[in-house]
Formats: sequence, structure tokens, C-alpha cells
Amino acid sequence: MERTRHQGMAKNTYMRWRLPLVCLLWEVAMIVLFGVFVRFNPEADAHWEEEKQKMNLTSDIENDFYFRYPSFQDVHVMIFVGFGFLMVFLKRYGFGAVGFNFLLAAFGIQWALLMQGWFHSFVNGKILIGVENLINADFCVGSVCIAFGAILGKTSPIQLLVMTLFQVTLFAVNEYILLNLLHVKDAGGSMTIHTFGAYFGLMVTRILYRPNLEQSKDKQGSVYQSDLFAMIGTLYLWMYWPSFNSAISEHGDAQHRAAINTYCSLAACVLTTVAFSSMLQKKGKLDMVHIQNATLAGGVAVGTSAEMMLTPYGSLIVGFICGIVSTVGYVYLTPFLESRLHIQDTCGIHNLHAMPGLIGGIVGAITAAAATEDVYGKEGFVKAFDFTGQYKTRSPSIQGGFQAAGIFVSLLMALAGGALVGAILKLPIWGDPADENCFEDDIYWEVPEDEESDVYHMHNPAKPASP
Amino acid sequence: MERTRHQGMAKNTYMRWRLPLVCLLWEVAMIVLFGVFVRFNPEADAHWEEEKQKMNLTSDIENDFYFRYPSFQDVHVMIFVGFGFLMVFLKRYGFGAVGFNFLLAAFGIQWALLMQGWFHSFVNGKILIGVENLINADFCVGSVCIAFGAILGKTSPIQLLVMTLFQVTLFAVNEYILLNLLHVKDAGGSMTIHTFGAYFGLMVTRILYRPNLEQSKDKQGSVYQSDLFAMIGTLYLWMYWPSFNSAISEHGDAQHRAAINTYCSLAACVLTTVAFSSMLQKKGKLDMVHIQNATLAGGVAVGTSAEMMLTPYGSLIVGFICGIVSTVGYVYLTPFLESRLHIQDTCGIHNLHAMPGLIGGIVGAITAAAATEDVYGKEGFVKAFDFTGQYKTRSPSIQGGFQAAGIFVSLLMALAGGALVGAILKLPIWGDPADENCFEDDIYWEVPEDEESDVYHMHNPAKPASP
Amino acid sequence: MERTRHQGMAKNTYMRWRLPLVCLLWEVAMIVLFGVFVRFNPEADAHWEEEKQKMNLTSDIENDFYFRYPSFQDVHVMIFVGFGFLMVFLKRYGFGAVGFNFLLAAFGIQWALLMQGWFHSFVNGKILIGVENLINADFCVGSVCIAFGAILGKTSPIQLLVMTLFQVTLFAVNEYILLNLLHVKDAGGSMTIHTFGAYFGLMVTRILYRPNLEQSKDKQGSVYQSDLFAMIGTLYLWMYWPSFNSAISEHGDAQHRAAINTYCSLAACVLTTVAFSSMLQKKGKLDMVHIQNATLAGGVAVGTSAEMMLTPYGSLIVGFICGIVSTVGYVYLTPFLESRLHIQDTCGIHNLHAMPGLIGGIVGAITAAAATEDVYGKEGFVKAFDFTGQYKTRSPSIQGGFQAAGIFVSLLMALAGGALVGAILKLPIWGDPADENCFEDDIYWEVPEDEESDVYHMHNPAKPASP
Repeated sequence: MERTRHQGMAKNTYMRWRLPLVCLLWEVAMIVLFGVFVRFNPEADAHWEEEKQKMNLTSDIENDFYFRYPSFQDVHVMIFVGFGFLMVFLKRYGFGAVGFNFLLAAFGIQWALLMQGWFHSFVNGKILIGVENLINADFCVGSVCIAFGAILGKTSPIQLLVMTLFQVTLFAVNEYILLNLLHVKDAGGSMTIHTFGAYFGLMVTRILYRPNLEQSKDKQGSVYQSDLFAMIGTLYLWMYWPSFNSAISEHGDAQHRAAINTYCSLAACVLTTVAFSSMLQKKGKLDMVHIQNATLAGGVAVGTSAEMMLTPYGSLIVGFICGIVSTVGYVYLTPFLESRLHIQDTCGIHNLHAMPGLIGGIVGAITAAAATEDVYGKEGFVKAFDFTGQYKTRSPSIQGGFQAAGIFVSLLMALAGGALVGAILKLPIWGDPADENCFEDDIYWEVPEDEESDVYHMHNPAKPASP
Repeated sequence: MERTRHQGMAKNTYMRWRLPLVCLLWEVAMIVLFGVFVRFNPEADAHWEEEKQKMNLTSDIENDFYFRYPSFQDVHVMIFVGFGFLMVFLKRYGFGAVGFNFLLAAFGIQWALLMQGWFHSFVNGKILIGVENLINADFCVGSVCIAFGAILGKTSPIQLLVMTLFQVTLFAVNEYILLNLLHVKDAGGSMTIHTFGAYFGLMVTRILYRPNLEQSKDKQGSVYQSDLFAMIGTLYLWMYWPSFNSAISEHGDAQHRAAINTYCSLAACVLTTVAFSSMLQKKGKLDMVHIQNATLAGGVAVGTSAEMMLTPYGSLIVGFICGIVSTVGYVYLTPFLESRLHIQDTCGIHNLHAMPGLIGGIVGAITAAAATEDVYGKEGFVKAFDFTGQYKTRSPSIQGGFQAAGIFVSLLMALAGGALVGAILKLPIWGDPADENCFEDDIYWEVPEDEESDVYHMHNPAKPASP
Repeated sequence: MERTRHQGMAKNTYMRWRLPLVCLLWEVAMIVLFGVFVRFNPEADAHWEEEKQKMNLTSDIENDFYFRYPSFQDVHVMIFVGFGFLMVFLKRYGFGAVGFNFLLAAFGIQWALLMQGWFHSFVNGKILIGVENLINADFCVGSVCIAFGAILGKTSPIQLLVMTLFQVTLFAVNEYILLNLLHVKDAGGSMTIHTFGAYFGLMVTRILYRPNLEQSKDKQGSVYQSDLFAMIGTLYLWMYWPSFNSAISEHGDAQHRAAINTYCSLAACVLTTVAFSSMLQKKGKLDMVHIQNATLAGGVAVGTSAEMMLTPYGSLIVGFICGIVSTVGYVYLTPFLESRLHIQDTCGIHNLHAMPGLIGGIVGAITAAAATEDVYGKEGFVKAFDFTGQYKTRSPSIQGGFQAAGIFVSLLMALAGGALVGAILKLPIWGDPADENCFEDDIYWEVPEDEESDVYHMHNPAKPASP
């Protein structure tokens, strides 16, 4: 009887026509829209030689490609290997973690090029793209990867593609409001990427609440090897975060400074994570979950302020605090959110992205409000906050206020958007797994029989029925 | 009786004197030849200060090192980690995959520096090398890594070193014919690297056909962990492919454009791979083999045209098609090639490199033939196709014709070369494994006893013979 | 009885208060010292616009960030993923290897920024940092990672943090003596990083000699999967070593040349490692320990000379020799050092860093002594060895002498420092593991129960006691 129900549920996850249909439909849409809208920007177009003369550039090295391509590649690694492998920690969901992340990110970057392009690179009816657009598309998808962390193991690939479509759209709108309407600085995306992505994902997982998820409890942990794979993700995120926070900053000192601040914040964060991981565990042993995640909170939390004159010791302080907040969150808040608020947050993105994202927004607002011409220099001050044109007369304290407003806008957009998208994903047509089949690759993937399973079978007490 | 034969075959694989001899002999040859021929080019030589004055350069940043070194490192990662780990998917051939790839690539880059140097960087009796030579050497070795994929698990390390020697030589000749005699553009190597490398490898594996390979059938699959390791290879190839296709393009817009086109093609390829992987499997589940390989076909297929004005939507279309072609190839063509044509293609390089390489050559020919001064600009047109000197009057359609010719030359060279080298490798002196020992590290490597094996032993029904 | 003793020892490793205390104390100290001393250098400061005018720079691309940031990121990967995963080879010490390496490096880079800053970047009472300081901090920590290799699995995280504090301090002093007082060139750190780090670590492990370590013998080996993880570390070290040796060289030709020389040396080293690994094993099979380690010796051994006119064939010769020396060391010297000199060197750093480091120092001294204005050019000669100011009249042979002196100073500092720090670490207050608990993550980490263990339990003959 019980068995029948399970099998009934399992049939639900049959992807053979639905998944191909969605993939092909959306890719065809991308081709059509790219055909109508997307072209190279002058620095990537074969007319560059003429452009160089117009802009009075004497060398090809002035092409934006050489300022940003190394950082772009680092960001690219963070999105695909960083986020992908960070989520491999589950013992039997490695294919889904790295594979679905690959799928949604590959689709998301295309849609993001369009959405962000319409808002930011639209010239004479065409979206003109260059390396900075690629970075921004990766950034946008980063927020989807974050949200994926909350629902990891509990959704079908179709749901992920649907979520990506909506989340990228809302991301672009929110980003436009912040960067263009509020004229807020957020180069490393504490607000636009982390706060938005995390609260969006938390809201989605709240709507998709599964009361009987404990049926998959045994699969929700890690094994020794999966924890090592996850450390690959962690380390690439940690090492390349300075590139993430500096990738789209202004050329020169701003990129340079953003990398240094992030480097410092992350270093401090490791020490407080280790301290609190040991302190909060009875036996004083370190918990891999904390090392894999909380060590990264320092990067999230300087996402807004890294390109500002936060200074190295300011960065250390931010990292110090976030290592603590994030680790404490894993120990106390995650269980609370699950039991009381019915937020089932597989990867604990509330601790790694949501809280540090909010802190990052606040640190950014304070740092902006505290800016002076003395600290930045006359030209540096204008350049750092782009106090030109209609913003010529904006003061640091006003800027700080707008920065703070950006946090709330991101939060609201995330919660409203997450509720909407969660409701859509709740429709019973997307093929999500039954409660007892969560965190299990076998539903959506051809899984090879392992040698271990051989052992299982070989010694299965049920099989070698004694004669 | 059967046992004796096996042991007899196994003795054949004894490497103790042969492998060291080949390694040392060839490395000594490299040292002598480097001593006679190889020097630094002016940008890497200590006379650079004088060179700068001669070339009227005002800054060290104009050194080619800064234009290409980040891309070089990405390509380097693709060759050693990308190809190396992509092939780790076999359950008991991980050491051989990553270790032999390491060995042949380390030897191959040295020999490639010489061979390519004689053809392209030979000045006054010396080969002058710089960062671009390093990239080209890595590229050349890439074609050997591709061929290695066809014979993976079925050859001795000596055979691989012999193959590398010959294949690098032929690669350099073929490349010289294409780039210098036919004046063909192929910056990302759809023809020189992928078509050549793949058909070369397929011919070699055809000649080395093993009728009784099914004796190793049980070892030719993957296990859960090995598939995750392989995804590391896949993702690094996928992420860094934009660097691969742009690494040796002209400074400025060409490098910039090549990266964007490749990024787009690869993104589209992921979606059609997923669509067809699910569609072609009865249960609609995704197959890791497709995700690991077919997602990369989009990079192969814009190898010739990425630096041209292919445009982002053109790239999407190419990627769209190649994801389908490659996945369909894995499902239908690979079994057909094995059963009918006796081509045993371990990694399915026919689907990942051969067909997409041909498509890439064709796309390149079409894109070149369709070029106009309007699209490229007057200067950009000449620069893009290097229509200078004796090629000043070559028209785009003629160029397209030569590009097409390049495909056939590469194909012929690959098939003829592969047949020759296959014949050499068939000699019974190289210590290749017996049919029943293929895909097994234990033949050439000291393999640690695993904990799982302990379990095996512990429960081995044969051992705890009941008293 | 035996059991009680074990439990008594085990209690000793209780980290709950000691580890958090050390981490927090030291991080607070870092914040205070950074607050007092550390500021951005002019290229990372918001005053850069004014600086540019002062220095007459026309473009942001002249910012040192663009010369060094890609190399910095490669070095960063080497320290955290390279060293971290290289040490994952132990079957049950993966968390400790990658996790403690992460911890000590994150702390070490902060302390190194201060120590090296006081010696090299101290201006008007402030340490002014930029991307070059980040690279140097990573370098300094590299020497601690090397020393960690000798004591891997036998120390508590507190001991590692204490060792890091002292070793970074001594590293900075030694570096100051070499670079500033002796005016020695050592861009890739054959002497300052490898010789110093390795002999320091060997001395520490000698002092911490454990006569009963064979109680952990069964855990001191690798398993199949852990060897594959270690190859990730190996390959990233191998691939990025050209960036390591060129990261802080002079702009232009020196960086370019250092990368080429290192590339060549490493390639040669792989072939002789393979040759000798096979030759020195009775069955002629390859040993993963050699492939994982000895292949890297070529990078260590051109650490001093790579930026000089060593030439590609000179590099091949150095790599050729070091592959042999290092492999032979693993086979013959490591057992000898353990049995006769009581040096228990877990990772064999004597073979990978100590001997190749010494060779690197010697090769550097010879290459410097052999320098001529003819080979380097008039300006290049002065630039390469910085023969300006008080060193204007120093001749190559004198320089060679000082280079040689640098080797001895590094050796002495390492041995004396290692003895001192070893003695401190021997105090019974740091919570190091008992002899039978070495090489075991379970002491300091929450380790997930594996599926294999499930199998164990399921079939544990002691448990399912037949009724």
C-alpha cells in the first residue's frame, strides 16, 4: 500500500518530455532574442581600430578586455565550480548539485545578458555586450545559485529553470532600481546578489515547505568524500572572492582596493569561524559545515564596501564579526528557522548569504556616509561615488541613506518575488520529487552502481538466503 | 590454462627498463635540441629594454606577456586538469587517466616547442620563444590529449609517448600547411586541434582494435565518485574555453570577441545537451556521460569562427546544434562505430571532438566567406583575415574556399598519420595490456589497498572458511 | 588498562576552549595592529588620480594591479588548493590536511602582511600595502605550508597556529637579511621559501620525534580516492608554478622569462620522475607518491634563477636533475632519515622542498656569477640584479658569492628557528594527538559516518550476534 503511493509519486518525476521541451523552448527563445537584440560593443567589434582612433587610444591594452578578463574568469569559476561543488556535500546528490547548477547557470547567463542588457547596455535598439556584461551575467546567476542552495535536493530541474527565468528578471529590475534610480554603489553585490538571492530563495523554500521531509533525513548528511569535494567549492569561492568584489569596479585604484579589502575580510573570517565552530560543539571538534560555509561570509559582507576606503583593518573587523554571526547561525538559527518558521534551508544560505548580505549593505551605507574628500582626495571622492551629473551635489550622508534604502528595496523585492515564484513552483506540474525521494540523485540521473553497492548486495542478508 | 595465458600476457606489461629508457632518452634529446636551438624571444630576453626603445614602446605593459599570460594559464589548466580529470570517469583507471595525461603532455609541450618553433619562430638559426609559443605548445598537446581519449585504458605509457612524438610532429606539419600555405584562420583549432586530433585518435584505435575487449567490460564504466571527479575536468574545460579560443587571437577586439562568442556557444550547448540526454533515455533521466562531454561541443565548434564576426546569436545557434549532434552521437553513433567499424572509442571523442571539429571548420569557412568590409570595417577586415602582402587581394569567398580545404587537409593528415602511428603502436614491443586487463590501473601503477577492499576481504566468503 | 590510557590521552586533545581562545586572541591582535599600521599604498588608495598625475601615468593600466593580479590569484590557488589538496593523500586525514592548511594560511597571511610590511613597506610609520604585498604574504605562508607537510597528522591546530606565528616572524627576518642586507635575488624563493620552510619543518618534526608512531602506521597510507584528490593539489601547483616564480619579478621581460624557464624545468622534471619511479620499483610500476611530489621539484629548483637568463635548456637540465634527486630521495632517503636521524617527514618535504631548494640556491648563485653584459645587455644587466646605488660596483662573481651566502643563512635560520619552535611545541599544553591517534581526522573534526562504515557495522561479526 505504502509502496504503491511511492511509486505513484515517483512517476510524477518523469522528465522525458517536459524537461527537453522547456530546455529547447527557452533556448530557441534565446536565439531569437539574441538575433534581434544582441551585438558586440565597440571594444569587441571588428570596427575597434576605428574606435581606437576616435577615443584617441594608442594601444590595444586599453581595451576593457585586459582590465577585466582575468577577474571574469575567476568569477566564472566561482559560479560553476565554486557554487557547484560547495553543494556536493550531500552524500547522494552530487550529480544534482553540480549538474543542475551547471544547467541553471548556463541558461541564466543568457537570459541575464538580455535582461541586464535592456536596462544597462541598450543603444539604438541593440544590446551591445562586452566582457563587463559577461561578468554581470555571471553575477546575476550567482544570486540564482544562492537561492538554489535553499531548495537543494527538493526540486526538479524544470522548477529550477522556471525559477531561474523569474529570478533573473526580478534581479535585473531590482538592480536597475538600486544602481540607476537610487544611484547606489554595490560592486560586489552584498545587496543585489546576496541579500536578494538569499531572501528570494528562503521565501521560495518557505512556500515549498515539506512537512514530511524527515523521511529523507538519512540522505541529508554528508560522507567523508563528499565533504572533501565540497571543500573544492569552498576554496575556489574563498580564493577568488577578491576578484568577485573587484571585477566591475572602476579601473585602477578601485579594483586594486576592492581585492585587498576582500582578501583581508576573508582571512579574518576563517579564524572566527574556526573559533566558534569549536566553541559551540560540546566535544570542541570542528564542524565541516562551518568551515565550508561560514569562512566565506567575510566576502559577502564587504561586497558593497570593498571598493570604498573601508581600509584593511575595517575589513578585518567585518570579517571577524561575520565569521561569528554565520557560525552561530548554523548552530542555532537554522534549526530554529526550520522548526518554527518552516524554512527548510538545505545549505544554510541564511547564514552564508542572507545575514552577511544585510551586514554588507549596512557596512556599505556606513562607509559611504563616512566618506570625506580628505580620505578620498578631491577627484577620488567624485570618482568613487560617481557624484557627477544629477548626483553632483549628493553628500556622503545622503548617499549613506540611499545605500540603506537599497537594502530594504532588495529585501522587499526578494520576499515578494520569492513568494510569487514559490507559488508558481508549487503547481503540481513540474515533477518535483516525493518527500522520501529528496536529496537523491537516482530520481533524475542515471546513477552508476557503485562498488560499495556491490558489497551491499554481496552481503545482503536477504539475498544469500541460507539453504 | 586460461590463467597461465593471462599471466604470460601480464608479464608483457613490465615497464621497469623500457619506460625509464624512453623517458630518459627523449628528455636528453630535448635538452640537446633546446641547447642548440631554443632561446628567448625579444620580449622575454634581458635585452628587452633596448628592444622597447627600438619598438618605441613606452611601457612594460605592452609586453605580449600581459596580453596573453592569463589566457595561457587557463589553457594550461584545460590541458592538465581539464583533459586529465575528464578521463578519470573510469572506475579503476583514474591514476592512468590523470597520470599518463600528465606524462604525455609534459613531454609533448617540449617537442611541440621545437616542432612549431622550427616552422613559425625560427630566426637566424634559433627558435625564439615567448608566451605565445607556450600557448601553441599546449594547443598542440591538446590534440594528443584528444587522441588519448580514444585509446584510454588500452595502451601502455610507452605507446603514449611514442604516439605523442609522432602526433606532435604531424600536428606541426598540418598546422604549417593550414596557417602558412593555405593562409587559413583557425585560432581556436577546430581543424588543427580537434578535427586532426580526433580523427588521428580514431584511426589509431581502429588499427589497435581489440576483438575481445568485452573481457574488460565490467571496468569500462564509472562509479559515483569517479563521475564527480570527471565533472571537475568538464567544468574547467567549459569555463576556460573562452580563453582557449581567444588565447592567440590578435590583440584587442579579436581576443575580446572570441571570448564572448565562445561563452555564448557553450551556454547554448548545455541546454540542448540536457534536453537530448533526457529525451533519448527511456526513463527520461540524465546521463552523466552526456553532461560531461556534449556540453563542451559548443566550444569545439566555434574554434575557427570565434574570433570572426560570428555574432552572439550565431554562436548560440552553433552551440544549440552541437549539443544535439554530440549527444545523439553518444547514444547512437558510438555503439555503431564499435560494432560495425571496429572503432573502440573509450571517451567518445568522435562525438566531442571529431564531429564538432568538422562543424567548426565549416562554420569558420562560411563565416569567412560571408565577411564584408561593412561588417568588419575597412581596417578590421584586413586585420581579421590578415589580407596583407601576398594575400592582399584575396576575397572572402576565396578565403572561405581555403578554409574548407583546410578541413580536408586536416582530415587526410589525421587519417594517414593515425594509420601509420597505429601500425607502429601495434608492434608487440610496447607492453600494452592484455584484453582482460584494460581499464585497470593495477597494471602500471602501485595501487593502494582500499578500505572497501578490506571490507571485501573481511567478508570474503572464501576466507573465513568455517571450521 | 590500555584503554584507560588512550582515553586519558584523548582528553588531552580537547580543543573547546584552547583553540577558540588562540584564534580570537590572535585575530584581535591582528585588528589592533592593522588599525595602527596598515594602509593602502598609492596604487590602491583613492588618491590614485593625483598619484597618476604625479607619476605622469596616462592610463590606469599602468597600475601594478594589472601587472600582478593574475599571478597573485594563481599563487593564491597554489597555497590553498595546491598545498591543501596535495596533503589530502592520507586516507583519513583529508579534513585536517585541507582544513588546517586553510586555517594556518588565513592567519599566516595577516601576520605576514605586518612582518614583511615593517621590513619592506614601512613609510612614515605606516605599512602601505598593494597587490605585491598580498603575493609576498602568500609566499611567506607557503613556507609554513611546506613545514606543515613534515608534521602533517601529528600536531594539533593550536600547535600549527603557534608554529605559524613564529615561522612567519623568522621568515621575514631571514628574507630581510637575504634581500636587503646581502642584496640577493630570490624571486621564486628557492632559498627564502623552500630551503627555509623545509629545513624549519624538518627540525620541528625532529624535535617532536614520536618513537611509537608505528602505532598509526595503518593510517599513514593513501586510498584510491585520496590519491586522486592529491593529484588536484599536484596539478595546480605544477600548472601555476610559472606564476609563482614570476609573480614578483620586475615588470616586462623578467616576468616573461621567469614563466618560460619554470614551464620548461617542470616539464623535464615530469619525465625523469616517471623514469626513476618505474626504475626504482621492482615491478616497474609507477608510484603515486613520486608523481604527486617529485614532478614539482623542477619548479622549486629554478625559484632563484628563473628570472635570470637561465635559458630554456638550462631549465630543462635543472628539471631533469631534480626529478631524479627527488624520486631517489623518496625511495632511499626518507626511510633513512626516519630510521637513523629520527626525522618523521610525513609528506617527504625533504625530497620536494629541501634538496631542490638547496639546488635552486646553488643554480641561482652559478647563474648570477656567470652573468655578463653581453648576455643581459647593458641596461638589462643592471636591471636584472639591481646593481644600482650602493651595489653599483658589485660584479657578477661577487653577486654569486652573496647568493651562496644566502643559502647558508637560510639553512642556519631554519635549523635554529625550527629547534626553538620545536621545543615550544613540545610543551604538553597544546593538545597534540596520542601516537595511536595520529593521521586521524576524528580527533579534531566531526567526521560523518560513511556508507562504508555502515557496511562495516552491518556485517560486524561482533554485532549481529546470532541468537
